Amino acid sequence: MSIVLGPNQFGKAEIRLVHVDRTTPVHRITDLNVSTALRGDFAAAHLTGDNSHVLTTDAQKNTVYAFAREHGVGEIEDFALRLGRHFVGSFPWIGQARVTIEQYAWERIVVDGEQHDHAFRRAGGERRTTVVTVDGDAAHVVSGIAGLVVLRSTGSEFWGFPRDHYTTLAETTDRILATEVTARWRYVGADHDFGPLFDGVRGTLVSTFARVHSLALQQTLYRMGEAALTSYPQVAEVRMSMPNKHHFLVDLTPFDLDNPDIVYQVPDRPYGLIEATVSRDDAPDPGPSWLAIPGFC
Amino acid sequence: MSIVLGPNQFGKAEIRLVHVDRTTPVHRITDLNVSTALRGDFAAAHLTGDNSHVLTTDAQKNTVYAFAREHGVGEIEDFALRLGRHFVGSFPWIGQARVTIEQYAWERIVVDGEQHDHAFRRAGGERRTTVVTVDGDAAHVVSGIAGLVVLRSTGSEFWGFPRDHYTTLAETTDRILATEVTARWRYVGADHDFGPLFDGVRGTLVSTFARVHSLALQQTLYRMGEAALTSYPQVAEVRMSMPNKHHFLVDLTPFDLDNPDIVYQVPDRPYGLIEATVSRDDAPDPGPSWLAIPGFC
Amino acid sequence: MSIVLGPNQFGKAEIRLVHVDRTTPVHRITDLNVSTALRGDFAAAHLTGDNSHVLTTDAQKNTVYAFAREHGVGEIEDFALRLGRHFVGSFPWIGQARVTIEQYAWERIVVDGEQHDHAFRRAGGERRTTVVTVDGDAAHVVSGIAGLVVLRSTGSEFWGFPRDHYTTLAETTDRILATEVTARWRYVGADHDFGPLFDGVRGTLVSTFARVHSLALQQTLYRMGEAALTSYPQVAEVRMSMPNKHHFLVDLTPFDLDNPDIVYQVPDRPYGLIEATVSRDDAPDPGPSWLAIPGFC
Amino acid sequence: MSIVLGPNQFGKAEIRLVHVDRTTPVHRITDLNVSTALRGDFAAAHLTGDNSHVLTTDAQKNTVYAFAREHGVGEIEDFALRLGRHFVGSFPWIGQARVTIEQYAWERIVVDGEQHDHAFRRAGGERRTTVVTVDGDAAHVVSGIAGLVVLRSTGSEFWGFPRDHYTTLAETTDRILATEVTARWRYVGADHDFGPLFDGVRGTLVSTFARVHSLALQQTLYRMGEAALTSYPQVAEVRMSMPNKHHFLVDLTPFDLDNPDIVYQVPDRPYGLIEATVSRDDAPDPGPSWLAIPGFC
Repeated sequence: MSIVLGPNQFGKAEIRLVHVDRTTPVHRITDLNVSTALRGDFAAAHLTGDNSHVLTTDAQKNTVYAFAREHGVGEIEDFALRLGRHFVGSFPWIGQARVTIEQYAWERIVVDGEQHDHAFRRAGGERRTTVVTVDGDAAHVVSGIAGLVVLRSTGSEFWGFPRDHYTTLAETTDRILATEVTARWRYVGADHDFGPLFDGVRGTLVSTFARVHSLALQQTLYRMGEAALTSYPQVAEVRMSMPNKHHFLVDLTPFDLDNPDIVYQVPDRPYGLIEATVSRDDAPDPGPSWLAIPGFC
Repeated sequence: MSIVLGPNQFGKAEIRLVHVDRTTPVHRITDLNVSTALRGDFAAAHLTGDNSHVLTTDAQKNTVYAFAREHGVGEIEDFALRLGRHFVGSFPWIGQARVTIEQYAWERIVVDGEQHDHAFRRAGGERRTTVVTVDGDAAHVVSGIAGLVVLRSTGSEFWGFPRDHYTTLAETTDRILATEVTARWRYVGADHDFGPLFDGVRGTLVSTFARVHSLALQQTLYRMGEAALTSYPQVAEVRMSMPNKHHFLVDLTPFDLDNPDIVYQVPDRPYGLIEATVSRDDAPDPGPSWLAIPGFC
Repeated sequence: MSIVLGPNQFGKAEIRLVHVDRTTPVHRITDLNVSTALRGDFAAAHLTGDNSHVLTTDAQKNTVYAFAREHGVGEIEDFALRLGRHFVGSFPWIGQARVTIEQYAWERIVVDGEQHDHAFRRAGGERRTTVVTVDGDAAHVVSGIAGLVVLRSTGSEFWGFPRDHYTTLAETTDRILATEVTARWRYVGADHDFGPLFDGVRGTLVSTFARVHSLALQQTLYRMGEAALTSYPQVAEVRMSMPNKHHFLVDLTPFDLDNPDIVYQVPDRPYGLIEATVSRDDAPDPGPSWLAIPGFC
Repeated sequence: MSIVLGPNQFGKAEIRLVHVDRTTPVHRITDLNVSTALRGDFAAAHLTGDNSHVLTTDAQKNTVYAFAREHGVGEIEDFALRLGRHFVGSFPWIGQARVTIEQYAWERIVVDGEQHDHAFRRAGGERRTTVVTVDGDAAHVVSGIAGLVVLRSTGSEFWGFPRDHYTTLAETTDRILATEVTARWRYVGADHDFGPLFDGVRGTLVSTFARVHSLALQQTLYRMGEAALTSYPQVAEVRMSMPNKHHFLVDLTPFDLDNPDIVYQVPDRPYGLIEATVSRDDAPDPGPSWLAIPGFC
């Protein structure tokens, strides 16, 4: 028996970057959280502390800032691809580079009915995400959303489940269905008009959540993925993680009150957690697309 | 010398409540985080563990849920007043009741250009708040906003400050100004049409942030408060807490790049913290309005 | 009517500083989170954006780091006093300086039964705190603890409370009592041997929590404060905020199981919140000691 | 082309459970956060909303609480195995069950030099973890630690790295090395005396961090894993995620002060992130051990 180094990666995580486009008086701001990770031949650093292959995480950070200046940012997928290709091309021992980006949305403040040129308001907790993996000459793009909290106040049933010794839940034909969607979708190829595509896929996911009369959160999830795949041939696969954020009717009978689906308590924990992948049967091989992406099956 | 009990209060904190108005097929949802606190003669519980005056925090919670069913919620100020008056009226030893509410905003999901009847999306991190204190027959209402993140990409200067031995900061005539506004405003009296008033004050604060060419965050803060007081005679006083969320230009000269106000790094900590009160000189006495409200001067 | 500036303060919040004492091979580390706030004549900055009185928050931060080098840190109260006195002495228009510090505890890693010279482990979530206010020539010191989570698995009763229309809680003579203590105590004067005093007061609070058979969390709180005041004449007043972190017995009867105080569920919210002050009847005037300290009555 | 359901799982996440062992007056408490996930034939729920295979997440939660009463908890690995085997044995369509547990440590409060029977203090942010996957008749156990924050104030170098166009970092032969260790180790087989084993592996990781003179965080990580594997033949593989929590020397030269490795600022973000696997070359196949475990390569 001997002890061996297995899969490994290193990089700089959570580089917070704001880019201001001042080319016209109507400024545009891009607000990002960028993380990089390199994979390749880094055995010496682990085994003997020989850093001759270690492109420092400080340099990785510098590269992110410098590229934002040199090339601008644009769509996060394009920015990530540019960075990933640079890293893989920089030294022969770097085989793969993964660039993960979260983008925070801002909207213009409206003053006297007009959108302001340079005053902005942060628009909510939802983030646009991408995980780009450059693997030699190949590139894999997984884009997504996180922090999208949605709720249906009716049109959600849950019944017909098996009852074992530990099942006490009542069946219901009308409950609140609420979740915080984390969705990631893998594109076929890496050459797309990523902005409109993102808007399209995101919009399809959201409107499908709204449209589907739900018999199970699993069903809602599947329909959302199916709709995205049906509408966007550029998408090979969708993975979703959807906590069931329970809303429980409060029992008001001790106070001589009924509660016909009106007043709910909302516990933080525990919560149901539904996770699934929906894909095309002819989806190309994912390669390292999903490596080390947190929390997906 | 003897040891004495000083000011004290107790209650139930962070009661999460969702109310669904199903009176028409177009549902309306109200999503709240309610905290209650009672003040009065509770010495025996402290001194001897005699609970005969302690209206349990469990009963306080029950009351919140039951009132939501019995009377509906409506504007959070009215809901808090109804609860506070109930508590003060319930037992003679309860002198004051404070009800604090945070409201989370939801917007309807749009499907095929139409707002959905019962599918919603959580709208960002901003919350509407109120702190209502009922003191015997009197009532005090402090409403506000929290979590409003705003940014100006230009139109912010900072110069003319004194330079001591420890001052190294360069003066600037153009910087990013970003903050997360916590504002609380005290109303004159407790009988208002709170919904439109909230929209008005909040809108005034936001648009003033956008309008003001800033020479100091203090100045921006003051103008925001002044505008609210000028436009709304119902407001006696505004207190604001505004962290200066620094955006620092990245030095790109080592990479032979300039950086003309384009690429910024955004540290989490430390941050400047500017807090001030703006009020009318004839504002009525606040009484216990501001007691135990976190983080204000 | 005219609009006026009321109380205000500004400073640098959450300056993270680690100091390493290398005077012997047995290193000592001090890990702090420091916040500063200045009060005085800063009207011009608010009213006209004239910054000639504004000692920049950047300079305040620099001062903190420089003082740690020049004078060392020592006990956090002494470090805060040194900083506060410096700020108040630096410019005539600065009337008050408040310096707030949280200290994170580290313990040495034990290797082969020996404490290591320079390898440390972060010791838990509890923090030692101080809020020092220098007001001209006077100085006020409020020290404390935060994040101290304690639990009694028996020896806690709760009964004898009044029952109104909304009371459903059962009385109990045996429950789990758990809380996260935030305690702040005000010292008489500012010239103490703060290290041993802190250890003494903290130890008294913790052991009193353990000792007291509890009839109400209010009673436990009071006894803790009383014990600190009785043992330490240097302490004028203790303020405590103690959430009642509920542990609810799970009803296992549907599964033909009893549950004699064995298996509990632990909700995050809502929670009871008990806050009170215990003081000497001859305590000196607090002056601005408690100004703008979050969350106390 | 058709659209297909891919890998999926569902369960109840973050079931907070406290178990009190009262069999002697010296109580023992066990404080857990349990998450369950089932895998198998759940296609119908996704495709048509047919829940006939869906063992509700509510029942999964009930099972966790009931098992804690019926069988006690004991070591978290044993509790997780018991639950996982139950779920897999409950219905034929459940092929795999994953049970994830985090355990929070408590220590007894010391009163008058004696450990108290039933009063406890929460001991820090470090958690003991396990992820158990029962796959038919097979069982896989991955145990670990999370939230272990450690620091070396000397004995850490970093030099010899390549310098590209974006490298500005200076080499150093003495820096602070600090990290928050997340480690997970996979056991060979599922039948061990898990308590002492956990203590042993954890102790080896911590003391190795303290012992190793570090030339790279990668090297420290590797040595930690190597030491665990060398000392414990029951361990097949160790995966570690170690952020490089940067401590930067403050430049005090503007204030005419040197800073010989004494005063550091501690930014939150960005941070280096080093992740690697160390294993035996004859480690048995992991099967589904690592499926959907967040954040590992």
